[in-house]
Amino acid sequence: MDMRRESDSIGEIDVPADAYWGAQTQRSIENFPFGDTERMPMAIVHAMALVKQAASRVNRRHGLDAPLADAIEQAAGEVAQGRLDDQFPLVIWQTGSGTQTNMNVNEVIAGRANEILTGQRGGKAPVHPNDHVNKSQSSNDSFPTAMHVAAALAATHDLVPAMERLEGALLSKAKAWEEIVKIGRTHLQDATPVTLGQEFSGYYAQMRLSRTRTTPLIEHGLCRLAQGGTAVGTGLNAPEGFGEAFAEEIAKLTGLPFVTAPNKFEALATHDTLVEFSGRLNTLAVALNKIANDIRWLASGPRSGLGELDLPANEPGSSIMPGKVNPTQCEMLTMVAAQVIGNHQAVTVGGMQGAFELNVFKPLIGAAVIRSIHLLSVGMTSFTERCVEGIEPNRERIAELVERSLMLVTALAPEIGYDNAAKIAKHAHDTGQTLREAALELGLVDAATFDRVVRPETMV
Amino acid sequence: MDMRRESDSIGEIDVPADAYWGAQTQRSIENFPFGDTERMPMAIVHAMALVKQAASRVNRRHGLDAPLADAIEQAAGEVAQGRLDDQFPLVIWQTGSGTQTNMNVNEVIAGRANEILTGQRGGKAPVHPNDHVNKSQSSNDSFPTAMHVAAALAATHDLVPAMERLEGALLSKAKAWEEIVKIGRTHLQDATPVTLGQEFSGYYAQMRLSRTRTTPLIEHGLCRLAQGGTAVGTGLNAPEGFGEAFAEEIAKLTGLPFVTAPNKFEALATHDTLVEFSGRLNTLAVALNKIANDIRWLASGPRSGLGELDLPANEPGSSIMPGKVNPTQCEMLTMVAAQVIGNHQAVTVGGMQGAFELNVFKPLIGAAVIRSIHLLSVGMTSFTERCVEGIEPNRERIAELVERSLMLVTALAPEIGYDNAAKIAKHAHDTGQTLREAALELGLVDAATFDRVVRPETMV
Amino acid sequence: MDMRRESDSIGEIDVPADAYWGAQTQRSIENFPFGDTERMPMAIVHAMALVKQAASRVNRRHGLDAPLADAIEQAAGEVAQGRLDDQFPLVIWQTGSGTQTNMNVNEVIAGRANEILTGQRGGKAPVHPNDHVNKSQSSNDSFPTAMHVAAALAATHDLVPAMERLEGALLSKAKAWEEIVKIGRTHLQDATPVTLGQEFSGYYAQMRLSRTRTTPLIEHGLCRLAQGGTAVGTGLNAPEGFGEAFAEEIAKLTGLPFVTAPNKFEALATHDTLVEFSGRLNTLAVALNKIANDIRWLASGPRSGLGELDLPANEPGSSIMPGKVNPTQCEMLTMVAAQVIGNHQAVTVGGMQGAFELNVFKPLIGAAVIRSIHLLSVGMTSFTERCVEGIEPNRERIAELVERSLMLVTALAPEIGYDNAAKIAKHAHDTGQTLREAALELGLVDAATFDRVVRPETMV
Amino acid sequence: MDMRRESDSIGEIDVPADAYWGAQTQRSIENFPFGDTERMPMAIVHAMALVKQAASRVNRRHGLDAPLADAIEQAAGEVAQGRLDDQFPLVIWQTGSGTQTNMNVNEVIAGRANEILTGQRGGKAPVHPNDHVNKSQSSNDSFPTAMHVAAALAATHDLVPAMERLEGALLSKAKAWEEIVKIGRTHLQDATPVTLGQEFSGYYAQMRLSRTRTTPLIEHGLCRLAQGGTAVGTGLNAPEGFGEAFAEEIAKLTGLPFVTAPNKFEALATHDTLVEFSGRLNTLAVALNKIANDIRWLASGPRSGLGELDLPANEPGSSIMPGKVNPTQCEMLTMVAAQVIGNHQAVTVGGMQGAFELNVFKPLIGAAVIRSIHLLSVGMTSFTERCVEGIEPNRERIAELVERSLMLVTALAPEIGYDNAAKIAKHAHDTGQTLREAALELGLVDAATFDRVVRPETMV
Repeated sequence: MDMRRESDSIGEIDVPADAYWGAQTQRSIENFPFGDTERMPMAIVHAMALVKQAASRVNRRHGLDAPLADAIEQAAGEVAQGRLDDQFPLVIWQTGSGTQTNMNVNEVIAGRANEILTGQRGGKAPVHPNDHVNKSQSSNDSFPTAMHVAAALAATHDLVPAMERLEGALLSKAKAWEEIVKIGRTHLQDATPVTLGQEFSGYYAQMRLSRTRTTPLIEHGLCRLAQGGTAVGTGLNAPEGFGEAFAEEIAKLTGLPFVTAPNKFEALATHDTLVEFSGRLNTLAVALNKIANDIRWLASGPRSGLGELDLPANEPGSSIMPGKVNPTQCEMLTMVAAQVIGNHQAVTVGGMQGAFELNVFKPLIGAAVIRSIHLLSVGMTSFTERCVEGIEPNRERIAELVERSLMLVTALAPEIGYDNAAKIAKHAHDTGQTLREAALELGLVDAATFDRVVRPETMV
Repeated sequence: MDMRRESDSIGEIDVPADAYWGAQTQRSIENFPFGDTERMPMAIVHAMALVKQAASRVNRRHGLDAPLADAIEQAAGEVAQGRLDDQFPLVIWQTGSGTQTNMNVNEVIAGRANEILTGQRGGKAPVHPNDHVNKSQSSNDSFPTAMHVAAALAATHDLVPAMERLEGALLSKAKAWEEIVKIGRTHLQDATPVTLGQEFSGYYAQMRLSRTRTTPLIEHGLCRLAQGGTAVGTGLNAPEGFGEAFAEEIAKLTGLPFVTAPNKFEALATHDTLVEFSGRLNTLAVALNKIANDIRWLASGPRSGLGELDLPANEPGSSIMPGKVNPTQCEMLTMVAAQVIGNHQAVTVGGMQGAFELNVFKPLIGAAVIRSIHLLSVGMTSFTERCVEGIEPNRERIAELVERSLMLVTALAPEIGYDNAAKIAKHAHDTGQTLREAALELGLVDAATFDRVVRPETMV
Repeated sequence: MDMRRESDSIGEIDVPADAYWGAQTQRSIENFPFGDTERMPMAIVHAMALVKQAASRVNRRHGLDAPLADAIEQAAGEVAQGRLDDQFPLVIWQTGSGTQTNMNVNEVIAGRANEILTGQRGGKAPVHPNDHVNKSQSSNDSFPTAMHVAAALAATHDLVPAMERLEGALLSKAKAWEEIVKIGRTHLQDATPVTLGQEFSGYYAQMRLSRTRTTPLIEHGLCRLAQGGTAVGTGLNAPEGFGEAFAEEIAKLTGLPFVTAPNKFEALATHDTLVEFSGRLNTLAVALNKIANDIRWLASGPRSGLGELDLPANEPGSSIMPGKVNPTQCEMLTMVAAQVIGNHQAVTVGGMQGAFELNVFKPLIGAAVIRSIHLLSVGMTSFTERCVEGIEPNRERIAELVERSLMLVTALAPEIGYDNAAKIAKHAHDTGQTLREAALELGLVDAATFDRVVRPETMV
Repeated sequence: MDMRRESDSIGEIDVPADAYWGAQTQRSIENFPFGDTERMPMAIVHAMALVKQAASRVNRRHGLDAPLADAIEQAAGEVAQGRLDDQFPLVIWQTGSGTQTNMNVNEVIAGRANEILTGQRGGKAPVHPNDHVNKSQSSNDSFPTAMHVAAALAATHDLVPAMERLEGALLSKAKAWEEIVKIGRTHLQDATPVTLGQEFSGYYAQMRLSRTRTTPLIEHGLCRLAQGGTAVGTGLNAPEGFGEAFAEEIAKLTGLPFVTAPNKFEALATHDTLVEFSGRLNTLAVALNKIANDIRWLASGPRSGLGELDLPANEPGSSIMPGKVNPTQCEMLTMVAAQVIGNHQAVTVGGMQGAFELNVFKPLIGAAVIRSIHLLSVGMTSFTERCVEGIEPNRERIAELVERSLMLVTALAPEIGYDNAAKIAKHAHDTGQTLREAALELGLVDAATFDRVVRPETMV
């Protein structure tokens, strides 16, 4: 492989001749050999490039030469659009400030900008990765800025629409099935009736509430940016007002309402906001687990389970049992929920260990949050399209199960008292009789009252 | 021990003659022998009594006889005020709907109301635990209502004031120390300077943000009540409008803005709101861990650590090392944080496993959230009073450490470039020189420029 | 209240005249006001007293006066037997080394020993809490020793017997039901048959494996003791061989094979062994969750669920639905599992944060592990006695469900190929036919072959 | 793109003409669009191929035609060696039994075997993915078998050697530095002295114990295989003795002591063994966090921290602070620890939710465990090579800090009593005197005694 020589404050090092990156990226490749499956998520790399683009626009007003600024902005734009993804080989497991990914971005943008300006790829002149691309910035403020930008973009463009779509599908089922009376179940035991629509209205309400818990934190939490704090929160080496001007530029670039964080010390040294956001993803995972779990249970069978719902058959279910169809979208979603819950723990453990002016679990936290958003977004969309929207109720089975239930006796309690009603249910259970037979045999209610009161359709 | 005979739908059972409770409480004592250390938190029992009081006020409008209602309300009031705490022997680890604690409350209130009305303690007449005290209710709606009421009261009266007090103490330190220039630290390594006030302003910002994350969920989450859903969410056996009227009454009793939950199916079958609330306590724990950890590190020493802060000496620190003083309030608070993080996991695991019309991890979730609120409230208050308010800066030591730092070189980078500045720092480190000596020896900057630029007090 | 004056290195303080404790206990009461529900578990206090008893026996050989040693041993014995439990008011949330509980034990034993020797309760003469009761010890080695002793005793006397009992009950069911052929279920969907005995043999195997994972760590982990390390692991101020002699004494006192830890630095600064033990309790919780969950599902109904098992009816199930019976022991056990999983997280978070020569999350870790052992021990015993041992199979229902299943078609696959077998199952499902009808109608197998091959009783 | 038509029991579907896979793989690509970053780990795919190879060897003895068996074994060998990695596009988030990855492997092996036999890539003849490649198997037993095989191989070949290497490096430092006396620290406060070798012996002991906790479970847990249970644990459609013969074959192929699991119901329906293994990785993560954290703290500085150790400078530390060097390997390792702790939670949550004859969180559990092993293996190796092996003690600084400490007073306590010793320490602290000065000024000990007793080098 053709190599060229690059240098940093440690010394000289060979990098591949066709790479845009420089010495610090190369060192990190060698120092953290976790392999391609552990790459820093591209969403964070792209967000870093947006940071560089916005920073350059502000730096131009504070003395950065226009030709350099132009080249930086063009190169950063290419990175942000994903056109140089193969130039970002670094992994999540690096320095805890994300400095190496910041330098990877700085070096690639400098290397590309130098190519634009001179025809020569790489190097530090005329555009220097630190002095120009990283101007007025530190990893300590620009990496957490990129974490927030990446999370806000993914949450806005992927997560929230996926939540809305699932919410909409559940609402439409809740409405379509509002007349289907079915057995309610508490403690997994037969209980008084509900409608299938009511059951799905509960799922819809879970999603609606999940959304109302999530969206405000995007705007009022993720959209607050650390940029402007530089190395320790004081803003040393950045011009006054840099954070505010930067936030305006990146808001323009992305269309999201980014603002500068009111306290930069908090913004560098803690990731409480991402821990909190991860907590809301955790709640969403909990909600999805309940919904997917209920649905697969209601669809259990086809002949020896509850059998109240039919799910779309997307694929053969078994490599050994011919003709089997399984609730695979539910299984995918509950597995996603488990990983999101685990990631929340990772984020919590990383978030709690900041020290003094810096939390050095940034790449872990950023990567885990981005992965959770991705898993939930794709998971919900797929679950909606390939499962929820195609569910059909098994009306015959539903009717059969509700008619059998002994818990219809509850409607009699206000008439004859809890203790007498309990005697009827117990007698029916012991003898295998219907409730009506048991009630009349025990003489605790007359037939006319029974027929007036014990009507599933009026109990929902 | 004198016993009397009580009965339920399972049959007859002996209860202590002087107990107010009845058969179902007695059965639960025998079926779940975990012992006194595992009792259901009294905060939940008291909240259940408020539920009974409010329900009785509404039931009176729907046919509950006034003398019975009067006696129920009086008895419930006594329970709510903690005057009958020894009548609630049941443990957290019982039926997952909290039915047994609900029946314990129903039986004690009935037993006390019967005593008021007849002079005879216990029993089911004239006041019946199910037909009268539990009228229009199910455990499935009244227990989760009590969970929300208990959590909202504890959060409002204990947690938020404790947060505010800590926030205030941190702000006052941030202001008092805004002129004390000290070494900043990133990656635990010397970095550019900050003021001690800036450092504490970061802690203050953490607490302020924690509070803004917590308080809205009290009003807009915890204050939504399941009551009115009865057994499965349909409200069977409760009069129309019961949930709304109940919420008004309990709002009057408590002074908190309780309203009825818009969807009762969600409110019985899930505890997403409590999972979410627990997530916010988790974020608070993460924030407190950072603050307490920083403070004990800054106070490390007294002679061989960082030694920048002096903490109040509240007690002897060691049973073997005479004269030792330890950061015990910090240790208490970080241990509390760890348990809150663990409880959040317990709540998550319980919350994710609801099925159909009911989540049956209610006592676990309720008890864990109440315990977390208690630990955080007392922990923050004690930490504020016995540690934060008494912290003193060690000005001499702080000044000594900032002067030594090589990272003051950062201020030179915009003048002479990152690479040259790095050379100076490296040279000083290798030779043990001061930065100034190294800079001049290398000839990379003149003395006048150095003295103008490298001034800690202008770098913060 | 009558008070007397006591003193420590901080100064003087009043303590209740009738208390055995001294100044440091009193200070801790005031400095950590969490209340009675947060008391240090008595199991740890009793183990601390055993530590003092054993230490005194060794100290006697190294110059502790016999009359003092006698009095210390008598007083420590009284504490270990629980006769002075009301003298231990301190809470879990104190200094992270457990120093205050160590001093509480030292002070009470000294106070009681002084009473034995002089008739005067409390004080520091002739028996001094530090110089005599704590002789050759530090909190830093004796508190973790007590944590291990308490956990080993509770695990040996409570946890393992409870595991064995559940294991035995499951094995006995597995044997009793080995002929009952039932539907198997995978993905909650009907699958090929198993016997009920096979299903329970799986639960039995889970418990047997859980036991083989747990017991070795009691002997080879929990039984290694920190004692002898004193303040930082070097054993300063303890005579040579103290740790070994101590371990022999406490082994005699308890009958467990305690030995001294080979490396005291590890034993003071980390609780990896307790984190590991907690991890095994976590696995046990996971296993119990599966077993209890399956059982409640198999017992779901009674009329509109799976209905394959009947569980003992221990109490009325519902405050509103008369005659309802719920799987309350399963619910208790799954809630216990959730809390144990949460406690494991708390222990992990505490365990990971040791620093230098000491981990200061000791009381948290000790209390959480002791609580998890207690919850699991009582939970399993109760579940065994009040649920598993009384389960009855519903043979009629079981037979009905297995006959219906389409997955019996699997037995045909080796004869006619997977794809043809799938066609039969699909056809039966679409038409509502039996498998046999569908198979013959499609002409993919002859009746004789079908009847020979598709026999549930030969498929298990 | 050229396509060809394949079919399964759902119907026909187009697949890329040059793909080896068939209909079910194609369906899964479309049904679970999570993208390349979420691919099923190749370690599991390779282990699945080993499963197919071993199964074919046994099937050959039970009627599988030799030419088909030969082709299957050749094709499986190619997959196991990683020569067809691009043929495995499926993601983790699929059906919970791993059926789709099993079918992907079955289809690719069949497709490649058919190419070997006929020159025609893909298809189901002469080699059929289900009837021949999957013969005597179900996803339900072969996927968990592959999970165990993959984990056992990775643990044996990557994790244990990495643990041994770190253990060795720590031991060598413990020996090299056994004479360097330094300040001990408890509660972050100065305590009595230790040697640097003792401190590192504690880390060494942590690693040695971690290894003794991990290795037995590889042999006695991971090496027990589910294979032979087929769909539900009964072994339907597999010849008698299949599991045993299979285990022998795969033991030969891999050199690991695989045996058949004694109870197949447990082996399919639960992943308690992997939950347990994950728990041990969790303990390892906790241990590594302590070690890496201590080391970065001891290396804090260079001028305003503890400064007792010098770490290798592997890269420039800061994009803004020139000359800064950070403990990046420590940061990498503590981030890895956090993710492993999170993954353990994901595995716990997945493991606890098995139902009846199958746990359907298999891909989640398998992928999380494999990722944790990978992160820990690479992380420990890198940390050993690039940090631990290059650490140098800063002897001058170490000596300076130990001399200052007030806690040397502890050595006086056995001579003059705890209370007098405490007075000396307090006096020295208040006045800024040395211990010796304070002791003599207070007259509590004579100079000769002081000099004899208070010698750091005899206190370790």
